[in-house]
Amino acid sequence: MRDFSQDHRWLSINTATVRKSRGQEVPLPEILDACARRGIRAVSPWRDQVAATGLAEVSRQVKAHGLALSGYCRGGMFTATDDGGLKAADDDNRRALDEARELDATCLVLVVGALPGALAGKAAHKNIALSRQQVHDGIGRLLEHSRAAGMPLAIEPLHPMYAADRACINTMEHALDVCDALDPLPRSGADPEGPPQAAALGVAVDVYHVWWDPKLREQIERAGRERLLAFHVCDWLTPTRDLLNDRGMMGDGVIDIPRIRGWVEEQGFEGYSEVEIFSAQDWWQREMGEVLDTCIARHRSSV
Amino acid sequence: MRDFSQDHRWLSINTATVRKSRGQEVPLPEILDACARRGIRAVSPWRDQVAATGLAEVSRQVKAHGLALSGYCRGGMFTATDDGGLKAADDDNRRALDEARELDATCLVLVVGALPGALAGKAAHKNIALSRQQVHDGIGRLLEHSRAAGMPLAIEPLHPMYAADRACINTMEHALDVCDALDPLPRSGADPEGPPQAAALGVAVDVYHVWWDPKLREQIERAGRERLLAFHVCDWLTPTRDLLNDRGMMGDGVIDIPRIRGWVEEQGFEGYSEVEIFSAQDWWQREMGEVLDTCIARHRSSV
Repeated sequence: MRDFSQDHRWLSINTATVRKSRGQEVPLPEILDACARRGIRAVSPWRDQVAATGLAEVSRQVKAHGLALSGYCRGGMFTATDDGGLKAADDDNRRALDEARELDATCLVLVVGALPGALAGKAAHKNIALSRQQVHDGIGRLLEHSRAAGMPLAIEPLHPMYAADRACINTMEHALDVCDALDPLPRSGADPEGPPQAAALGVAVDVYHVWWDPKLREQIERAGRERLLAFHVCDWLTPTRDLLNDRGMMGDGVIDIPRIRGWVEEQGFEGYSEVEIFSAQDWWQREMGEVLDTCIARHRSSV
Repeated sequence: MRDFSQDHRWLSINTATVRKSRGQEVPLPEILDACARRGIRAVSPWRDQVAATGLAEVSRQVKAHGLALSGYCRGGMFTATDDGGLKAADDDNRRALDEARELDATCLVLVVGALPGALAGKAAHKNIALSRQQVHDGIGRLLEHSRAAGMPLAIEPLHPMYAADRACINTMEHALDVCDALDPLPRSGADPEGPPQAAALGVAVDVYHVWWDPKLREQIERAGRERLLAFHVCDWLTPTRDLLNDRGMMGDGVIDIPRIRGWVEEQGFEGYSEVEIFSAQDWWQREMGEVLDTCIARHRSSV
């Protein structure tokens, strides 16, 4: 397991973590500058933040700073009530894929969607099995473009509390079932001593979403290096006061993050540890510099 | 599948649903009277409500009304930081078992506990595997008394959002793994045409906690009639504004309750459908009679 205590070379900042500073939106260029000034080598930006600045300008700045992208947030939201909706999702996902490629991201992260309309408070139906089928089919269609573009797709299983409105893939096991069905890896014939085969489809492991799962270690082992495309960290607070925007800084909650990172690294994962914290009442109310400095300190002490 | 549309003979009221009326605590005798007046045949009371009135008085009233108990809430909370804590939990659970027997409950429902201290906001450690081992061992010890008393234990897998502070058994699969380890059923030698064997240890299926699980149907089939000891209903609201006390009335959320009830009844479950709603801002603010009448109506239309 890599030693993170001496530096922060493997730290990545998901830009949602500092989306706001003292409650005010921060433009993406200011976030990128602030990260680069601190020797942070990687980020994972959100599409809306990129769009607000302009893709070309963000791409230029990322290259100028020499920043890597540990992921691009996000594609997905594959579910809909009619063919037009499914088609619109397909089109939008291909644009996300193109943006990820332009920014040379490690992967496009997928938040797959759930019951159509639920995020707006009014689910169009209650058939989660139908949503899961639409997600499966949508990933399958996007995968053709992903392979052509050489841009892997990372399914992010979200915590089951988001099953209604954000993502109906809620466990590593389910995510890997989809991976294996759509992107089988010909492991049996491969040279076991050779390099791992590249997977076009894998998973983003966010400790916030999966820490509770009694099958987590087993499923991380099942994923293997080929399918472990991203590793996200924050912490689970007790009490958690909001289902979406009350995530904790690493070390402030109950997740044994080093243990989970150990399992991921046992599989050969050598990527960045990406901090993704949504925190309306706490961290988004603080000054961006304090938040980034705390991320660096906690990356060393608590990840 | 039973037809619930014509009457409410299979309705049970978990007394937490009407714990408050217009925001004021309601004594258990008033709840029992109000249920009996409406022809509700079963309830599931909470220990603190029973204690406030006195076990003997509650027992007398339950018998006078001819009320069945679809369960008794609750035992569990098996985790602790030292032997004294584990022993105290054992003692308390045996008392709960005795109370359940005095009230002739169908089962003692177990909310198994999680990281010690987390419910008070300060977890003593982050080792959820240790908590799970303590739960396993604690259920094993209680099971001896359960068998002697003829009072089955129903593990209630809670939603994963409660894994830190309330219950570290969060899926049907995990609950049934514990059941099979501690209370193996000698199915292989049993007469397949004979009556189902009684299990000392089973599960309480609450749709709120398990509706999202892609393996739900498979695990309900695995549980079989022997292990399906209780069936709880309410609904998942979008948005959900609070992790604990924002549960919805059946029909107001996104859970396909009849589908899940169908799966449970396919296994031969013939028990009550128990309404358990924690709703600080909505149903606990209404008048108890209105809430009970709504439970009856929704039991007919949406369960």
